Amino acid sequence: MTLIVGIDPGLRFTGWGLLESTGNRLRHVADGVIATDGDEPVPLRLKMLHDQLQDLFSTFSPDEAAVEETYVNRNGAATLKLGYARGVALLAPALAGIAVSEYGAMAVKRAVVGTGAASKEQVGMMVRRLLPGATIRRADASDALAVAICHAHHRQSNLRIAAGTRMA
Amino acid sequence: MTLIVGIDPGLRFTGWGLLESTGNRLRHVADGVIATDGDEPVPLRLKMLHDQLQDLFSTFSPDEAAVEETYVNRNGAATLKLGYARGVALLAPALAGIAVSEYGAMAVKRAVVGTGAASKEQVGMMVRRLLPGATIRRADASDALAVAICHAHHRQSNLRIAAGTRMA
Repeated sequence: MTLIVGIDPGLRFTGWGLLESTGNRLRHVADGVIATDGDEPVPLRLKMLHDQLQDLFSTFSPDEAAVEETYVNRNGAATLKLGYARGVALLAPALAGIAVSEYGAMAVKRAVVGTGAASKEQVGMMVRRLLPGATIRRADASDALAVAICHAHHRQSNLRIAAGTRMA
Repeated sequence: MTLIVGIDPGLRFTGWGLLESTGNRLRHVADGVIATDGDEPVPLRLKMLHDQLQDLFSTFSPDEAAVEETYVNRNGAATLKLGYARGVALLAPALAGIAVSEYGAMAVKRAVVGTGAASKEQVGMMVRRLLPGATIRRADASDALAVAICHAHHRQSNLRIAAGTRMA
């Protein structure tokens, strides 16, 4: 059994989702959204995000982390801000000694729906289908669970392929 | 006397520079460059940067930090990577309880040279002139000292202006 935490980072909202992967089976454990106060200075918002990720890791002790490499198609300033949040989301597991993998949006869609051209709605629907019994209220949390599912899928494939292939 | 640390963040090289600000006087204390290994995964590189910034803060105990808001004019992927490093550079002082200010490239040039249109070379020359006696070997360290000088300048202005004005 491997406990995987998926993270979909953003400066305003960072989705997270935890699932257990045992062989081909997946089980939903928990999910949520970390919000930071837009009225606070950026360094303090990054500290809020960092502290809440560290709390999450000490509460659940995940074995592995997977972070979504969010698509870059907005303006420079927005991309830079997204970079801050992703930097903190990649740093926090590294500080906690948790291995981190990164997956692009296409890889996540392919793993969850079967095609890189899937819509956000299809991804959300498949996440609920693959994790029956879970009540996932927030889109950011659902996206984070999708990254965790993608990681579970890839690590299984990597275990099957003796030679090992590069992830995503 | 206020000990100011200036930081010019980058994933590959992060310049830092420490100076003492007493009234209108500036004194160079130390400077250097934190390098991360390009062959390592990004989360570990961010951890290297974070750990070395924390070491720096515990060695020198700076009172205030100033971070350069590097210009965003490259492609999305490069901007995102720069964002990771800036995110860590903004987080590290916040975690150490050090107040962080951010300054755009124009504000730094204006504070150091007197015009926002100054070249990199002019900034480097003026940093050496304003901090006599210091041997500054690396451009990244010189840029970090320039941000620290900019912060020293602004905090002095803010002390003079009773009403206080918004920085940079």
